[in-house]
Amino acid sequence: MKLWSKGYELDPTVEAYTVGDDVDLDRALVAYDCTASAVHARVLRKAGVLNEEEAKRLVDALGRMKSLAEKNEFPIRPEEEDGHTALENRLVEQLGDLGKKIHTARSRNDQVVTALRLYMKDRLDDVSSLVDTLVAALNVRIDADGSIQFPGYTHTRRAMPSSFAMWAGSFAESLSDTKLTLGAARELIDQNPLGTGAGYGIPVLELDREFAARELGFARVQSNPLYVQSSRPKFEATVVSALLDVMADLHRLAVDLILFSSSEFGFFSLPREVCTGSSIMPQKVNPDPLEILRARYHEVLAHEVQIRTTAAGLISGYHRDFQCTKRPLMLSFETVAASLRVAEIVVRSLTVDVDACRSACTDEIYATERAYELVQQGMPFRDAYRKVADELFGSED
Amino acid sequence: MKLWSKGYELDPTVEAYTVGDDVDLDRALVAYDCTASAVHARVLRKAGVLNEEEAKRLVDALGRMKSLAEKNEFPIRPEEEDGHTALENRLVEQLGDLGKKIHTARSRNDQVVTALRLYMKDRLDDVSSLVDTLVAALNVRIDADGSIQFPGYTHTRRAMPSSFAMWAGSFAESLSDTKLTLGAARELIDQNPLGTGAGYGIPVLELDREFAARELGFARVQSNPLYVQSSRPKFEATVVSALLDVMADLHRLAVDLILFSSSEFGFFSLPREVCTGSSIMPQKVNPDPLEILRARYHEVLAHEVQIRTTAAGLISGYHRDFQCTKRPLMLSFETVAASLRVAEIVVRSLTVDVDACRSACTDEIYATERAYELVQQGMPFRDAYRKVADELFGSED
Amino acid sequence: MKLWSKGYELDPTVEAYTVGDDVDLDRALVAYDCTASAVHARVLRKAGVLNEEEAKRLVDALGRMKSLAEKNEFPIRPEEEDGHTALENRLVEQLGDLGKKIHTARSRNDQVVTALRLYMKDRLDDVSSLVDTLVAALNVRIDADGSIQFPGYTHTRRAMPSSFAMWAGSFAESLSDTKLTLGAARELIDQNPLGTGAGYGIPVLELDREFAARELGFARVQSNPLYVQSSRPKFEATVVSALLDVMADLHRLAVDLILFSSSEFGFFSLPREVCTGSSIMPQKVNPDPLEILRARYHEVLAHEVQIRTTAAGLISGYHRDFQCTKRPLMLSFETVAASLRVAEIVVRSLTVDVDACRSACTDEIYATERAYELVQQGMPFRDAYRKVADELFGSED
Amino acid sequence: MKLWSKGYELDPTVEAYTVGDDVDLDRALVAYDCTASAVHARVLRKAGVLNEEEAKRLVDALGRMKSLAEKNEFPIRPEEEDGHTALENRLVEQLGDLGKKIHTARSRNDQVVTALRLYMKDRLDDVSSLVDTLVAALNVRIDADGSIQFPGYTHTRRAMPSSFAMWAGSFAESLSDTKLTLGAARELIDQNPLGTGAGYGIPVLELDREFAARELGFARVQSNPLYVQSSRPKFEATVVSALLDVMADLHRLAVDLILFSSSEFGFFSLPREVCTGSSIMPQKVNPDPLEILRARYHEVLAHEVQIRTTAAGLISGYHRDFQCTKRPLMLSFETVAASLRVAEIVVRSLTVDVDACRSACTDEIYATERAYELVQQGMPFRDAYRKVADELFGSED
Repeated sequence: MKLWSKGYELDPTVEAYTVGDDVDLDRALVAYDCTASAVHARVLRKAGVLNEEEAKRLVDALGRMKSLAEKNEFPIRPEEEDGHTALENRLVEQLGDLGKKIHTARSRNDQVVTALRLYMKDRLDDVSSLVDTLVAALNVRIDADGSIQFPGYTHTRRAMPSSFAMWAGSFAESLSDTKLTLGAARELIDQNPLGTGAGYGIPVLELDREFAARELGFARVQSNPLYVQSSRPKFEATVVSALLDVMADLHRLAVDLILFSSSEFGFFSLPREVCTGSSIMPQKVNPDPLEILRARYHEVLAHEVQIRTTAAGLISGYHRDFQCTKRPLMLSFETVAASLRVAEIVVRSLTVDVDACRSACTDEIYATERAYELVQQGMPFRDAYRKVADELFGSED
Repeated sequence: MKLWSKGYELDPTVEAYTVGDDVDLDRALVAYDCTASAVHARVLRKAGVLNEEEAKRLVDALGRMKSLAEKNEFPIRPEEEDGHTALENRLVEQLGDLGKKIHTARSRNDQVVTALRLYMKDRLDDVSSLVDTLVAALNVRIDADGSIQFPGYTHTRRAMPSSFAMWAGSFAESLSDTKLTLGAARELIDQNPLGTGAGYGIPVLELDREFAARELGFARVQSNPLYVQSSRPKFEATVVSALLDVMADLHRLAVDLILFSSSEFGFFSLPREVCTGSSIMPQKVNPDPLEILRARYHEVLAHEVQIRTTAAGLISGYHRDFQCTKRPLMLSFETVAASLRVAEIVVRSLTVDVDACRSACTDEIYATERAYELVQQGMPFRDAYRKVADELFGSED
Repeated sequence: MKLWSKGYELDPTVEAYTVGDDVDLDRALVAYDCTASAVHARVLRKAGVLNEEEAKRLVDALGRMKSLAEKNEFPIRPEEEDGHTALENRLVEQLGDLGKKIHTARSRNDQVVTALRLYMKDRLDDVSSLVDTLVAALNVRIDADGSIQFPGYTHTRRAMPSSFAMWAGSFAESLSDTKLTLGAARELIDQNPLGTGAGYGIPVLELDREFAARELGFARVQSNPLYVQSSRPKFEATVVSALLDVMADLHRLAVDLILFSSSEFGFFSLPREVCTGSSIMPQKVNPDPLEILRARYHEVLAHEVQIRTTAAGLISGYHRDFQCTKRPLMLSFETVAASLRVAEIVVRSLTVDVDACRSACTDEIYATERAYELVQQGMPFRDAYRKVADELFGSED
Repeated sequence: MKLWSKGYELDPTVEAYTVGDDVDLDRALVAYDCTASAVHARVLRKAGVLNEEEAKRLVDALGRMKSLAEKNEFPIRPEEEDGHTALENRLVEQLGDLGKKIHTARSRNDQVVTALRLYMKDRLDDVSSLVDTLVAALNVRIDADGSIQFPGYTHTRRAMPSSFAMWAGSFAESLSDTKLTLGAARELIDQNPLGTGAGYGIPVLELDREFAARELGFARVQSNPLYVQSSRPKFEATVVSALLDVMADLHRLAVDLILFSSSEFGFFSLPREVCTGSSIMPQKVNPDPLEILRARYHEVLAHEVQIRTTAAGLISGYHRDFQCTKRPLMLSFETVAASLRVAEIVVRSLTVDVDACRSACTDEIYATERAYELVQQGMPFRDAYRKVADELFGSED
């Protein structure tokens, strides 16, 4: 039964279209909904809507449901539209009239915002810790191979001497900086939205939102109910932008590795456990996982675009459109986490080909050094530059 | 067993990441792969690689597989990576050594391009026909309610008299024009890619690509093998751009309907079979399906962005990155088809509120008409305009 | 003076913000506006609003203005907001009361749509002809150097033998196909919007829109006035999508050329007239123009995204938001035309290094050929593949 | 003269294409380049490349140039390519051989990154302070009109009672939160890039980068030279994402104001000083500035997409492609600053129509309140909900 049921049925084509993949996606959110619902039961106790016994029975039932949800055994039926409905229906089945009280002073609107926010905080922590693991893997490699020199490139042309330490260190430093960005996103969203109803607050009843914030582990209360609703797509966009920053580093890592492990460059080689073959060409050993890693940047970019455009043109307040950002948001987290894991495996397992690196360090990459030696002998830099250039290209005269 | 198997195993995390959702997506492509493979068997017969008996046995087996695939009963095992591999494995299981011959003179690269192209042609035809159905539904409504007048808006302000016929007709005309765009996309992709191998042609053996084009129903041969590969993301982008044009019309239809059926405008009302309710507010009747329809525009836009960016930065030739555009491509088709169906249901079932329309036709929307009447009496238009404006706003002096 | 002047002044900050860069952009549109206005004068003659003498004087004055505009000498004053206003003001200055009649039965809304559409048709023709020039340049090079072989790449790994003819031909064939897409866009927009006013038609007066279509060179009349307005962003999006298809080819050309002219690949060399240097490293010769060419793809992509999102969320009918797509539209044309010119210069001037190409054709790229030779001796392909693979990598056992 | 001049000329078409609009854009950056160059001169003094007298003369000359630049009187000649070249050329003109020493131990690569970073820090501070001004304007209005009630909307349908304080407060709270995001972007980029040359450090000479960081006001040194280069597009993307968050709030503000000031809603009215008219319809008073404000969100979104995609596919190290993100970056700042100013003017000047607000507060928006009153009498919420719904829609039976 739907929460808003008024005795008629939706057109089935229309219903399937409207529900979309909520039933699937909500499986990852139901445990958070149970947590928030248990806190809400205690808020209702404080507000005098429930007595102690009622609150306790609801909290216990929700605890059991949460365990099921964490084992992915909590049932959501297609005709229930979403996890929130399933949760209320299960409570009514188990507790009768008491179950019908859980939705007092709340809306699915603040419920989904709360569940998503708890979900995002957890997933941001996961991503942050996977970033740490990758940075650690890079540092292990720098300790071992840091001093190996190969050319640094500008304009895809040999420029000046670089090294494994400089190359790998540039990713380690960049990834460490993404933790600033991930942290700022986490700080932004760390506000309790629960208790704001459909976006216009709860009339008649008094809810202790500070209590709910503390119990749910939020740093502060998000006070304006209408802002709770308009912040939903906004916070999601900020979070996915931060995830995209992580993907940008992984994308560049993949781009470098694919080119630098080609036979033309040859600085690195990839173990065949991270390569695949061709169905037609017997000799091929292809860096497919890195190519997928490279492509996934564009997937997360597309998710950001979708989230950032979906709310455009809409007046303040909840719109069902917001449901459509759930998939790109959740897929972004999955993609970033999987990509960080794959990147770490590749970083740990690649080999640096010392000979190829050395023989690529041709004379030209020391031209700047020669100019600086002339500078140290007192020649103005621009003259030294031209003198070295003349030696390489012939005089202008 | 993988087609390129060389006696080692991929890291399982890496393998899962690389395979992605190919096993799922390929279920919709395997039937096309069977069709193309059967034609390929006959090409190999003409090339002397197979004898008549061998070709016939392959064609028959592929016909049986296609029937299974169309009933969604063709098995693809996760460890097989994709449908192409599953198809060859099934042939080897059923036909032994003969099965090992099917992949002569082809690559998964041209196989997937061919299957996708046949798929896209069919889906474009479906979309085109759903557009016809929606246009027909609009025209039925115009016949019935076309003469009802309500204000036309510019800048979200009442401007001049409009009518149901003008409003609905603007969508009918626009949708009819999208058929030009859909048709151009179909014409562009109507080229046979089969027979180009990994993107550099087939050495040693001679393939009759004209024959294959005819048998597969392609209008012409795509001759340059390298272009076959680089056209994959390009054609997909063109197709999804065309689909996005359709979605743009549906998006605007949804935007209009949501606002015009609000209590503030009230020109239309939606039957409750296409509306849902609120979990908290007993009075609400919400146009959720139209909101989802509105949001789906941004989803298809994001798909276009993903497809258009995925191939950026890549040199000519196949890259595994191309696999990552399969999902946004296929989801775009599903979304557009479902959206067209929902739009048609809504168009057929909405009601026009004649009274609300009439009472919204306030005096101001006839101001231009009054100016033109002064023009007909000989006053220059700009003076007539100012005279009417002065009457409405007071003189400038 | 503004056309809608009602005796008060806009806040100056707000006015500057609202006008944006219209005054600049409209310089490229005024000539088209003169053409359309002259046809409109003749339509007004047929409608009885003007007499023969009046129509002639307007047509003559507009002809003189058009000549000025084509020499970029037509003045648009900042306080006039846009070129349409400047045009009417100039007519009033020159012809007095007669000038005040030109705006009878039209709106800036249909005026700007008409001017933009004429502009787009001309620019599409320019782009199409620049595509022809580039294709011709590619074919000249194929005639001269087509037979030079170098490796073809898949997954950025040497795959099979390719050739200059196959490589350059893939661009020639792809660019030829973009002409289909450019042509479809041109056909779509080849509809006369003039005579539809603000988007709700012209009351009282009768306009001969078929006559206007013929005189303006449009293939047909766009009949529904509301569709004229909603087609503005839609047609612009379709046109920019087609332009982006051209840029996609140029982008890939630049990507290939930058890598293939690196010292690691070395197949091509670029004349120094299309290269620049470094301010610090004396030895550098950098392919900057090709890097800019590569980057411009993303600029046009961003323009498409801007155009496709600007109209989202808006109800049917004109909105001032539409003005904001003028810049991305016009910049896209400029960028594509300039990029095609630069690409042609590079294609004409690059050199193929025969020796580097030959020495890159290492044994591995003939592995597929060897497998096919075994096939010709009767071995099933998959067995032949494994035999060649075993020779290269060692047996699986 | 170009810094890299080697005695030949670029093809003029190619040169114009490559230089792009750098000469224009750099006018806003030259002052920052002077600041950074003066600090660099002192670093060279500490490194022993310059003596005290030389350093002083360079610092003085750069101070004079900076004053010119701040008055927009610093000349950049088209053939100089960019501001960095102009700066060195002016120094050589004024100081002879000493001018040729300024580019010792630096590259245009780190020069442009440094100038852009100083520019971004200043502009972020400007935006942050404009956000404060807008929030203050909202709070002034809340003090005056906060208690006025009008309906709150969900799904564009009247939902529950809202108020001017809740509505305006939702923007104030949201804008205050964007300061978190702007601050995080500022903190991220607050790292000294100067002293890293072309991206691979400075050989031979020793630079005191901590000193430079302090003198330039950076919070820390960005140590890895290669990361300095790869962080350029990354930092720009993070900054523009933060700016887009600001634009998202302004976009929604504009969307609300346009609809709520329509005659159908009528809660607000806009003073005519922020409205414009129609060239054809005498009665129109249109909210054009708000429509432009609404559209500008999509412009900044497009800028973000351009910046985020331009660097995709590129290996680590500088590429000329990076130049192409300068325009979208700088335009984003201009757009956001101008939009904040316009929003503040509108907020200060709009009027709330108390009567329209009151009469829109129809019975239906109190339905939830009625249900909660039943809850307080002991009825389970879901039963109370259904009872109120039955009263409104009739019983299900």
